[in-house]
Amino acid sequence: MPADSPETPPTAAAPSAAELARRYAAVRRHSLALAEPLSAEDQCVQSMPDASPTKWHLAHTTWFFETLVLQAGDAAYQAHDPRFAFLFNSYYESLGPRHPRPQRGLLTRPSQAEVLRYRAAVDEAVLAFLPRAQPAQLQALELGLHHEQQHQELILTDLKHLLSQNPLQPAYLPAPAASASPAAAPARWLRFEGGIAEVGHDPREGFSFDNETPRHQVLLRPFELAQRPVSCGEFLAFVRAGGYRDPQWWLSEGWAAVQAGGWQAPWGWSGCEGDAPQLFTLFGTRPLQWQEPVCHLSLYEAAAYAAWADARLPTEFEWETAMRRSGAVLRRADETLHPHPRAAVPDDSAVPQGLHEVWEWTRSSYDPYPGFVPLGGPAAEYNGKFMVGQVVLRGASCATPPGHARLSYRNFFPPAARWQFSGLRLARDVR
Amino acid sequence: MPADSPETPPTAAAPSAAELARRYAAVRRHSLALAEPLSAEDQCVQSMPDASPTKWHLAHTTWFFETLVLQAGDAAYQAHDPRFAFLFNSYYESLGPRHPRPQRGLLTRPSQAEVLRYRAAVDEAVLAFLPRAQPAQLQALELGLHHEQQHQELILTDLKHLLSQNPLQPAYLPAPAASASPAAAPARWLRFEGGIAEVGHDPREGFSFDNETPRHQVLLRPFELAQRPVSCGEFLAFVRAGGYRDPQWWLSEGWAAVQAGGWQAPWGWSGCEGDAPQLFTLFGTRPLQWQEPVCHLSLYEAAAYAAWADARLPTEFEWETAMRRSGAVLRRADETLHPHPRAAVPDDSAVPQGLHEVWEWTRSSYDPYPGFVPLGGPAAEYNGKFMVGQVVLRGASCATPPGHARLSYRNFFPPAARWQFSGLRLARDVR
Amino acid sequence: MPADSPETPPTAAAPSAAELARRYAAVRRHSLALAEPLSAEDQCVQSMPDASPTKWHLAHTTWFFETLVLQAGDAAYQAHDPRFAFLFNSYYESLGPRHPRPQRGLLTRPSQAEVLRYRAAVDEAVLAFLPRAQPAQLQALELGLHHEQQHQELILTDLKHLLSQNPLQPAYLPAPAASASPAAAPARWLRFEGGIAEVGHDPREGFSFDNETPRHQVLLRPFELAQRPVSCGEFLAFVRAGGYRDPQWWLSEGWAAVQAGGWQAPWGWSGCEGDAPQLFTLFGTRPLQWQEPVCHLSLYEAAAYAAWADARLPTEFEWETAMRRSGAVLRRADETLHPHPRAAVPDDSAVPQGLHEVWEWTRSSYDPYPGFVPLGGPAAEYNGKFMVGQVVLRGASCATPPGHARLSYRNFFPPAARWQFSGLRLARDVR
Amino acid sequence: MPADSPETPPTAAAPSAAELARRYAAVRRHSLALAEPLSAEDQCVQSMPDASPTKWHLAHTTWFFETLVLQAGDAAYQAHDPRFAFLFNSYYESLGPRHPRPQRGLLTRPSQAEVLRYRAAVDEAVLAFLPRAQPAQLQALELGLHHEQQHQELILTDLKHLLSQNPLQPAYLPAPAASASPAAAPARWLRFEGGIAEVGHDPREGFSFDNETPRHQVLLRPFELAQRPVSCGEFLAFVRAGGYRDPQWWLSEGWAAVQAGGWQAPWGWSGCEGDAPQLFTLFGTRPLQWQEPVCHLSLYEAAAYAAWADARLPTEFEWETAMRRSGAVLRRADETLHPHPRAAVPDDSAVPQGLHEVWEWTRSSYDPYPGFVPLGGPAAEYNGKFMVGQVVLRGASCATPPGHARLSYRNFFPPAARWQFSGLRLARDVR
Repeated sequence: MPADSPETPPTAAAPSAAELARRYAAVRRHSLALAEPLSAEDQCVQSMPDASPTKWHLAHTTWFFETLVLQAGDAAYQAHDPRFAFLFNSYYESLGPRHPRPQRGLLTRPSQAEVLRYRAAVDEAVLAFLPRAQPAQLQALELGLHHEQQHQELILTDLKHLLSQNPLQPAYLPAPAASASPAAAPARWLRFEGGIAEVGHDPREGFSFDNETPRHQVLLRPFELAQRPVSCGEFLAFVRAGGYRDPQWWLSEGWAAVQAGGWQAPWGWSGCEGDAPQLFTLFGTRPLQWQEPVCHLSLYEAAAYAAWADARLPTEFEWETAMRRSGAVLRRADETLHPHPRAAVPDDSAVPQGLHEVWEWTRSSYDPYPGFVPLGGPAAEYNGKFMVGQVVLRGASCATPPGHARLSYRNFFPPAARWQFSGLRLARDVR
Repeated sequence: MPADSPETPPTAAAPSAAELARRYAAVRRHSLALAEPLSAEDQCVQSMPDASPTKWHLAHTTWFFETLVLQAGDAAYQAHDPRFAFLFNSYYESLGPRHPRPQRGLLTRPSQAEVLRYRAAVDEAVLAFLPRAQPAQLQALELGLHHEQQHQELILTDLKHLLSQNPLQPAYLPAPAASASPAAAPARWLRFEGGIAEVGHDPREGFSFDNETPRHQVLLRPFELAQRPVSCGEFLAFVRAGGYRDPQWWLSEGWAAVQAGGWQAPWGWSGCEGDAPQLFTLFGTRPLQWQEPVCHLSLYEAAAYAAWADARLPTEFEWETAMRRSGAVLRRADETLHPHPRAAVPDDSAVPQGLHEVWEWTRSSYDPYPGFVPLGGPAAEYNGKFMVGQVVLRGASCATPPGHARLSYRNFFPPAARWQFSGLRLARDVR
Repeated sequence: MPADSPETPPTAAAPSAAELARRYAAVRRHSLALAEPLSAEDQCVQSMPDASPTKWHLAHTTWFFETLVLQAGDAAYQAHDPRFAFLFNSYYESLGPRHPRPQRGLLTRPSQAEVLRYRAAVDEAVLAFLPRAQPAQLQALELGLHHEQQHQELILTDLKHLLSQNPLQPAYLPAPAASASPAAAPARWLRFEGGIAEVGHDPREGFSFDNETPRHQVLLRPFELAQRPVSCGEFLAFVRAGGYRDPQWWLSEGWAAVQAGGWQAPWGWSGCEGDAPQLFTLFGTRPLQWQEPVCHLSLYEAAAYAAWADARLPTEFEWETAMRRSGAVLRRADETLHPHPRAAVPDDSAVPQGLHEVWEWTRSSYDPYPGFVPLGGPAAEYNGKFMVGQVVLRGASCATPPGHARLSYRNFFPPAARWQFSGLRLARDVR
Repeated sequence: MPADSPETPPTAAAPSAAELARRYAAVRRHSLALAEPLSAEDQCVQSMPDASPTKWHLAHTTWFFETLVLQAGDAAYQAHDPRFAFLFNSYYESLGPRHPRPQRGLLTRPSQAEVLRYRAAVDEAVLAFLPRAQPAQLQALELGLHHEQQHQELILTDLKHLLSQNPLQPAYLPAPAASASPAAAPARWLRFEGGIAEVGHDPREGFSFDNETPRHQVLLRPFELAQRPVSCGEFLAFVRAGGYRDPQWWLSEGWAAVQAGGWQAPWGWSGCEGDAPQLFTLFGTRPLQWQEPVCHLSLYEAAAYAAWADARLPTEFEWETAMRRSGAVLRRADETLHPHPRAAVPDDSAVPQGLHEVWEWTRSSYDPYPGFVPLGGPAAEYNGKFMVGQVVLRGASCATPPGHARLSYRNFFPPAARWQFSGLRLARDVR
């Protein structure tokens, strides 16, 4: 029986209200910690339509809880400010009209201080409401926590874009001590057999977004996957070999982007032709570290590099299967805030490296899984309606908050996006 | 052994030079027949960057043979006009710089008459060269024939777009007698089992483009597919039910397109709220026929309709498997030029209808097949470099020339494209 | 002798260093007073490419003094921060490359506090340098004061635009008590004879910008000028008469702007069809006051109204001559900060009303005066290079700082500009 | 009495119906002669929104007579094709909706042959109607003749733009024999006194457009004007001196245009740094002739050259006064069709050269004359509604048809326009 059985699979027990209250406090606190080094000005400005101001992220995630938990579940709840629904709804058509996305940066009011008061008021109301919440609200709250974690990563990527636009090239945080960066040893190829594999979220493992479901079977051919992502030093060789000037490596849309955007290297790189290439980081401009995984690539650049290296990108199912079969665990490099790619630990083991460093572009378009059914209610708009024109990334990055990563996670961005912490890992057919 | 065996599969014998000469004459003649009803003005103008003038299509397909057959294989061949390589190269980076696509309509010179002379000269040279051509040139010539057939369809779709922009709403051909058009009976659902299926081109069956290869196995879940495409009458019900005003049915990009473009119905439809809806055809504006398959849909509209109808689009592998298992044959409605969707023959059989009427959007992004390797030489740019941001359509349309359709054929367009003869067929999960 | 005599005319004595120091302190203080009600966020954001953030205005005016006074005159002066020249140069090609105008709002660094320190440091250096400054630096300083006054008006207009983009429609200042607003009595027509008139700045009257020179003679026909600007109530009648829907009143470019922009009334007006029209002001949204002069008009709207009213706009020379012959004095309504048009005092006198209320569009393009010679040095770029594609406005507005207005002043904006405090006064030929 | 007297001035006798019939036949024939060397394709395509296809010009001028003469005056007249009013109305709001200007090139139907039949039918009807036409229709017909002459010039300039976009650089006509082209001798300065001058059209001299009226007095300062326009050789010196790379010579908008457009020389010039500069002409690409007047300049380039040459552009009133006082006569270089600037005849006389060679940019914005009243009826839209954002050119060009030029003629274009036959003549103040 090749396809999934029709029975409902066993699912993990839902977290208790008390457990959710604990997690809620921690997640909400983490967002504030991310904003803490920033001035009100830093938190207000929007540097491009795709990015949002920190203040907006802080308010939007609050609106999400207020709307899907408090207003949905507590008939007595009074909106903190009824006008905020218009300002801080992101894209939920079913929840009414909203402020245009490209104008989020014009909201100098409500002020940063008012948004913090909004957060505090909603936090107090949520924690007071939790003990009497119904399962539907507890589910919505859990979704809201993962939602806020997604925005925590965006706070860092959007902020990085903003700071990059400033000729002063300012830093978000003081730079840590520089470490030596020898060139990475060649990545080891790990071989995986073909056959039927199970992919997608296993409901016994707790929460997932709807786009990771249903768990299902796929048929794979034998393949090889690199033990670690491509490093900056390796990518620099592509740059220096004229990779950005030779159309043969590029998808057609990619080559058009190279020419229209004047791309000559990954976003934020400079001085590639000289002795001391540099890149822009959340610590300011720093020397390029040979061993670090390359990031801020578009899908186009990732695919061009792979073609030049006589390899290819893995499909999302190859990636997931390789990680599962190897027993890889996605783990964070350390417990401190660490918003830029750090030096990769060279690893000769047979297990793919699973540090949170860079999202890895796959060669899978973001299509629905067979049997995919979106969540009900407003959450139906969470994922499904974006399933066209985007490409899947797997793994997690240095900006992904602790506890948010999992092997079935499907991140997705348009192929031209460069401002995320996005790199690649090579794959190839077995020959 | 779930994956393909590594041995090279048996392939069909290559057609002989004589057979290719026969086909060459027929295909080349057909292009001229398509242009015949048009004035030099009609053939010169470009109505949008995505479309090309008829004259350009006639010249570009000629340049393809001149470059990939004559210049590649005959050292003595002198270019008909060395400047034409710049004008009529479409997108082959490896064949040098070229005229920008959006400016193809500015080429009032060379004149229509000169382009016909170019065609005649190259035809003469090709036919003279064929008897001494090497297998590589014969292969290129065969590719060129299928390439020209693709442009034959584009001649009609691009022309239709041009004529549609004219307030006079002129006709390409005199309208045939109108037939009565009762509403179609509800489409029958055909059920298909899940399991492993073989998809992609079978090399024993003759020519294919590289994007249809390699043939490989996929794992399917049980599914149902409608016996025929959605009809105009059925789609009109969606329009009249307010489908174009309700975001819940739409992909996010699709809803944005509806609003930005002011879409209210399929491209070319008018009067949907009244008693006598009309649509623009290559015969001019005509009453909408209830039973005809709907066409000129974007992927967005196809997916929105499917959502509204509580169904979905098939994947390209479901589509191909259903057609193969049913023994469906793609056949042309008749042997006359028939450039608009005609009334579908209602069919209660268990075989999916296979008339050439409309391309059918699938819910599969245009990604490479596992193990895909592009053709060598300039033909490497034929398909592979477009494998991002596009969606697969299967089947064929009333504008597809005779002999061009096959079950493994992967047509592809960006999801917003509406000027092709593109419709949909519903699918659904087995419940 | 119809033309100006070639002798150099007598000029006013240049102000002393001590007098300039006094004015410098006052002008610089006024800028800070304007910013005082605003948060750092309010001062950082840019709402459109034409507008600049308050913080940028505060820094740019400081850079002007630092560059044209301190660096030009004091060899020992060290730049406060050498990177600021790039950030805060506006459009002086001769002073080096600069940050692109549309990205001024991305400068969250330097912070608001740093910019205030920059101002304080430059103020200290300027006041210390003044006693030993050469005449050229004193002249540059005087220019800098008038330059800063221009930016004081822009601080208010640019801020008003920013606040208007916020769905909360926030106020810059608390609203003053509302006054009753009866409809204005019809404006009295004042008649002026034709003949030769002297226009342009009289050097005996002190400072002027170079674009007001040289004083010269023009030949006028007899004309009539309204005693006061057009009121909101009068303009509302045009709106309600369908003025924005009838192309006959409009310049061709103006009609295109109406349609492209969906203009239905002056910028910031709402509810014109109902009983209680409103307009957006620096005090928030307020009821429209019938008697106030209309403002936030483009030249197109001003000209359309004039055509509808069977009149026309005056030329800049008619305006200046009428004001001079009548002995009108431009005076400020009061000494308090007054950033929105206030109710006009009806006036039956024969003197044109000269309150600072709205800039008045003329029907004169912004061309150079005969014999115009730009200032030398970097100041050459101050005015002359903008003399194409713009239209002259005369008078002053409620946002013009005290002491900045004069009868020869030539304000100029592109004809489509609406975010300035711009209205109109009618003129007509003597019949 | 400085201003015009209020009495109606004497006017020339209106031409008789017979005289108008003679002129009508000649003007209409000339349009066809201009189109004669062109294929139907050449006449159909539109190369930019500002330009129109030849076929459209031929039809639009016909529609003008049909509408303003036949339909206005002959109750029995039946429109040749009622749909043509929509297609061939240019910008007359009062005459109903119309096809968008940027889509004029999409009209492959009606065909070239149909448009010729339209012309013939209207010609026949007009000539039959003339003997019984009222004065108002005779006036409209005379306006129509001058209108068609304006379009005759546009046929050539728009066609030249179209051909220039073709990489083959095709010719409209076979090139005449090349003449030697020595450098021109320095242009002689002619001096003119200041004082009151009469400008504008003198009604005793026959027809004029409304924008040339009323004749009125202006006050001029003494000035000097060059005896001939600037030559190609002189302008090349500016190019080679780095004029296109130095912002000091340019208006601000002009410098932005230089950078955005990558301008390095006048439109159509190439090879300026080498020994053999070339320019594109209606005869194809030809060697640059030193002595020819430079053309295809924007106002920006004309003003930049003048600044570099330590001179300025004349005002339109200086230009007209100098020509009138000198007794200059605008005359055509020869009676053959002569669509590109020919070598200027050096002239040492005190009379400004008046050959039809290039339109001469002035430093006067296109504002209404004092007392300007537009024509009545639809002709009100002929000129007045364009009086903003444009700059006046005086004289005539090699493409202006015989008999169309006069000293009071006010041509006008936006300052960035380069595809007209536009050059410059230097002026300067008397020092």
